[in-house]
Order: sequence, then C-alpha cells, then structure tokens
Amino acid sequence: MHFSESDWIACCGSSKFAKEMAKVRPFKNLTKAIEMSRQIWWNQVDVPGWLEAFRAHLRIGVLSSKSTIDWCAEEQATALSSANDRALKDLAEWNQLYESKKFGFVFLVCATGKSSSEILQFLKGQITNRLLVELQVAANEQQKITKLQLSKLVSQNTAPSGDKNTSKLSLLE
Amino acid sequence: MHFSESDWIACCGSSKFAKEMAKVRPFKNLTKAIEMSRQIWWNQVDVPGWLEAFRAHLRIGVLSSKSTIDWCAEEQATALSSANDRALKDLAEWNQLYESKKFGFVFLVCATGKSSSEILQFLKGQITNRLLVELQVAANEQQKITKLQLSKLVSQNTAPSGDKNTSKLSLLE
Repeated sequence: MHFSESDWIACCGSSKFAKEMAKVRPFKNLTKAIEMSRQIWWNQVDVPGWLEAFRAHLRIGVLSSKSTIDWCAEEQATALSSANDRALKDLAEWNQLYESKKFGFVFLVCATGKSSSEILQFLKGQITNRLLVELQVAANEQQKITKLQLSKLVSQNTAPSGDKNTSKLSLLE
Repeated sequence: MHFSESDWIACCGSSKFAKEMAKVRPFKNLTKAIEMSRQIWWNQVDVPGWLEAFRAHLRIGVLSSKSTIDWCAEEQATALSSANDRALKDLAEWNQLYESKKFGFVFLVCATGKSSSEILQFLKGQITNRLLVELQVAANEQQKITKLQLSKLVSQNTAPSGDKNTSKLSLLE
C-alpha cells in the first residue's frame, strides 16, 4: 500500500505536514510514523501551517448541530450518546465564543471516551487561557488526533490476517 | 485631532486592534493610549490577527535591499549607516530563512539604536527558538513598535507650542 499526500493530509490538515510525511516515508512501523509525525508537527510546520491544520477540522468533523468542535468520527458515539439538544446548543455557543471572540481558531479536542458535558467543561476551562497557552494546548490536541488518524490509516490498509506485522508491511509497500 | 482606524492601523497592522482602539478612544494621554494598546494586543487580538499585524510590515517597512526586516522608519538611519552590501545581503538571506523555512511570519525587530550587525546577531539567535517561544518574542517586538508608532502619531499631531499637555489635547479632540 502506497500512501500519498492526500492520505497524510487526512491525518493532519497541514499541507506542509503532508508534504514532509510523503518525503520521509516509508516507515518501519506505526510507532516510527507517529514519531516522525510528532517531529514534523513541532519542528517543521509553521504557525500558518498550524492554523491551516486547525481549519481543516471545520470540514472534517462537524457535529449535526453545526458546531465546529472536532473529534475523530469513531469517538463521536460516546459524546453524542450522552448529549441532549441543550448540551449540543451549549457546545455550539461556547465554541463560537472560543473561536470568534477569543482565539481565532476552532476548538479542538481529541474526544476519546469523553461525554459532551466533559467536553463542554474542558472548553469552558480553556477559554480563559492566554493566547499562547491555548495555541500550545490546541497543537497538543491536534497531535493526539493525528496519532489516532495515523493508526486508523494503517489499520484500514491492513489485511485481517492476524499477522501483527501486517501493518508494518502496509507502510513499507 | 480625531484619530481614525487608519491612524491606529499605521501603529499596528491588525484590523481588530484598529477597531478596538477606535472604540475606546479618546484617551486622557499617551500613557493611557499605550496601556490600552497593550491590553488590546495581548487580550483581544487573536492569532490570525497577530499574523495580520506581522504581515503588514512587508508593506510598511521594507529595506532598499528588498529584505522584509521591519523597523520604524526613523530608526533605519543607525542600522543603514553601519550596513554594507554584504551585511544587507546576509540580513535578507537570514530573514528569508526565518520566514520561509522556520516560522512562517516576517522577522520583526524594533531596531532602536541597533546596527545592522546587531540586528543580524539577534536574528541568528532567534532562529533556533521553538515556534511558540518565537511567536511570543515577535508579539513583544510588535508591541514595542506599536508604542513607538503611537508616540509618533501623537507628536505629529501636536502643535509645537511648548505646552506639555498639547499631546493630551490632540488625543482628546
């Protein structure tokens, strides 16, 4: 399986990130791919590139409430199963406040196992942060999301053979 | 003298900054205007707004060498008087590296009394910084430049009457 820039950009919406990942592939295994993704994200993607990655979440992960909070698709179940209309409305309102009134980029959270009320609490806790502090938090969340997306990319391209090394092969091919 | 958004944007190229300054004027004196500019810059302008302000320096302060290093016009004399072609070429090259290869925004320095070689040393020292550290440094430099530009705005609109309070009047009118 050959991964292209469009595969990498689905993991992290920065075009610089995708270009650099495409340059340095193949990877020995998923761990190496994640290590490299971390190195590229923190040391090679610049500030406009970070904002580009954050903006991609407007297109990738939009809730049915039209809020722009992003989470990995497979993680939505927990949050949505616990969400009522009021909770979704609150999330949408606080997200609007976060982006339009405070930081200028979409609220990101890697929502693994979090309920909608836990996400709302997290959002409310962040909104008083200073700009540079929150940029660091958002960049960390993006890195967590990238890690999950990379794992998904590999598992989707792994034959269900039971061979633990298949994912390694899929990256090398 | 009535100051408009275009006056404030000449002090700091963020449209949000200019809008907020226009909202809260008049100011009692220059000190109050500087205090408010600091509060707006750090607490109300967002990350895209910071980048917008940095980009404005490409248009406001470009050296004859076409380097995009910015400094206040009246501060160029010191640096340029000490600069030879080699120094200007070095500055242009390092600035290109700073913006295109590392941080994604123009190198800013409030160059009061600095020679071109001192500026080059400062630039070289910054280029190994982490992204968030350098964003903080650049935002600080922008605030210093804004402070100087505000002082200039007031002094340009002050009658040479020798009255120490004229600048206060020019802000209140």
